[in-house]
Amino acid sequence: MTITVVGSVAFDSIETPAGRQDRCLGGAATYFSLAASFFTDVRVIAVVGEDFGPDQESVFRTRGIDTRGIERAAGKSFFWEGSYLDNLNEAKTHITDLNVFAAFEPKIPDVYRDSQFLFLANIDPVLQRRVREAMPQARMVAGDTMNYWIHDHRAALLEVLKGLDVLLINDTEARSLAGNNNLVRAARAVLDMGPHTLIVKHGEYGATAFFSRDSFPSKEEGPDTHPFRAPALPLEEVVDPTGAGDSFAGGFFGYLASSAAAGELTPPIFRRAMFYGSVMGSFAVERFGTERLQRLSRQEIDDRFILFRELTHLD
Amino acid sequence: MTITVVGSVAFDSIETPAGRQDRCLGGAATYFSLAASFFTDVRVIAVVGEDFGPDQESVFRTRGIDTRGIERAAGKSFFWEGSYLDNLNEAKTHITDLNVFAAFEPKIPDVYRDSQFLFLANIDPVLQRRVREAMPQARMVAGDTMNYWIHDHRAALLEVLKGLDVLLINDTEARSLAGNNNLVRAARAVLDMGPHTLIVKHGEYGATAFFSRDSFPSKEEGPDTHPFRAPALPLEEVVDPTGAGDSFAGGFFGYLASSAAAGELTPPIFRRAMFYGSVMGSFAVERFGTERLQRLSRQEIDDRFILFRELTHLD
Repeated sequence: MTITVVGSVAFDSIETPAGRQDRCLGGAATYFSLAASFFTDVRVIAVVGEDFGPDQESVFRTRGIDTRGIERAAGKSFFWEGSYLDNLNEAKTHITDLNVFAAFEPKIPDVYRDSQFLFLANIDPVLQRRVREAMPQARMVAGDTMNYWIHDHRAALLEVLKGLDVLLINDTEARSLAGNNNLVRAARAVLDMGPHTLIVKHGEYGATAFFSRDSFPSKEEGPDTHPFRAPALPLEEVVDPTGAGDSFAGGFFGYLASSAAAGELTPPIFRRAMFYGSVMGSFAVERFGTERLQRLSRQEIDDRFILFRELTHLD
Repeated sequence: MTITVVGSVAFDSIETPAGRQDRCLGGAATYFSLAASFFTDVRVIAVVGEDFGPDQESVFRTRGIDTRGIERAAGKSFFWEGSYLDNLNEAKTHITDLNVFAAFEPKIPDVYRDSQFLFLANIDPVLQRRVREAMPQARMVAGDTMNYWIHDHRAALLEVLKGLDVLLINDTEARSLAGNNNLVRAARAVLDMGPHTLIVKHGEYGATAFFSRDSFPSKEEGPDTHPFRAPALPLEEVVDPTGAGDSFAGGFFGYLASSAAAGELTPPIFRRAMFYGSVMGSFAVERFGTERLQRLSRQEIDDRFILFRELTHLD
């Protein structure tokens, strides 16, 4: 089934121990949609400036991604500059120029309105909620957020959470959203805020899915609702961690959407989706920006899925 | 097969967010031997003071652990006081009184000399080496160390590593020992120092085993030598993290020793051993000191093993 994603499409200048790249194509919606495009059809809602040209457009088009929801505005695209020189797990932001993104008013093309899967990437929760309400047909809605919204826009964020099926955030964000340092208790508190499934991303240690009684409504609560942990691949070289979390989300949600046509989303499908999320995140960091996701085959994805299984399975 | 372990037997005063306990029985050899005792026969080499009485002795005896190698010296036992109030993943040490441990000269009872499995817990590498050399019959030797030895006694530690089959350390220690922040590269560097297998413990995120060509000598290098990651259990309450790593080592090495009688230690046996290590670590932290390990059944261990499998396995 088709996914519509709303979020940022941006230019990033990135410095890591592996080198420096100026003005790579970036943004959460970009990484998400590229990763998801290996599994299902993807439609993007975003705003870009006059610096977004045919080269950038073709990155999406080559992957068959629908860009009719990418609005062109006068001015420059969202620009971010950051480095990971001290710590590959945490970016140090040098510049954030919102540019055309500052006045972003998501416009949903009519042709997008039958998307049953909706991903609300990390943007102002007021906009996330507006898009969610404008797409009432979406049967599964997932989203991301960040500490800034958790701390300074909590009320608006809590409204969004009520309408989410799946929330994907990292450890720090989960603990901070719940106000509890214990991950299990934090997860329970977050699940009480609305989402029936919480994915907590642990960076190089993988990700854990916490389920609630509502994750699989046709089943009684039982062993299937235990948490599930997908590993990350121990990598010899992380060239650029930017976009790893968004690529995880794209692989995860893309696989779910691709499986939905066949019927109910069962616990085994969620577990496979977690693995595909980790797989896509592991590719994303191998090159600067979106370079690796642009040059990736479904065969490579499936081979790495097998590697992830070998990394974690007893037999 | 029988394991002999050399290391500290101590008293610990511990403060955590869950409370405070004074003078619990502790020490690396204590946690290790209790955890390993659920899998195989264990013999301890340590030194204690006059404050080590029948109550402490019975903790070992109840689990069938051979204490003939625990030497009684005039004075007090090793005492450690620490807290985990800010961070459950890292102890803050308040007091370290070596006491009788300062002059520890490991004495190996003759009846221990047929042990084919030897565990060198975290002590002065000079002593680790001496014990290893005094037990040439040991066919599998594993060990632990800590940043103090890595930084200030590097030459002596490197000598020990040459004689180890398996080294178990945490992320920080692995990176620091190798002088490389990338875990995969650090692991390769450590494997070049001697051990054919390196287990890196990630605290609440589990542990990763890295294998070298020599881990499984009868096999050619192939898919079996990929790393293996065992999870840790997401726990609602960590009462006391003290001894989690030593309990991991005890479960891991105990399971290996128990499997060795049946023949060669294959990759699937190492993977199961990793799981049993994580299982024992997850129990250890549920109560203060060794309390949980003292009141544990093999059935509980096997049930939790199944839980760990469900936590990570796709099907």
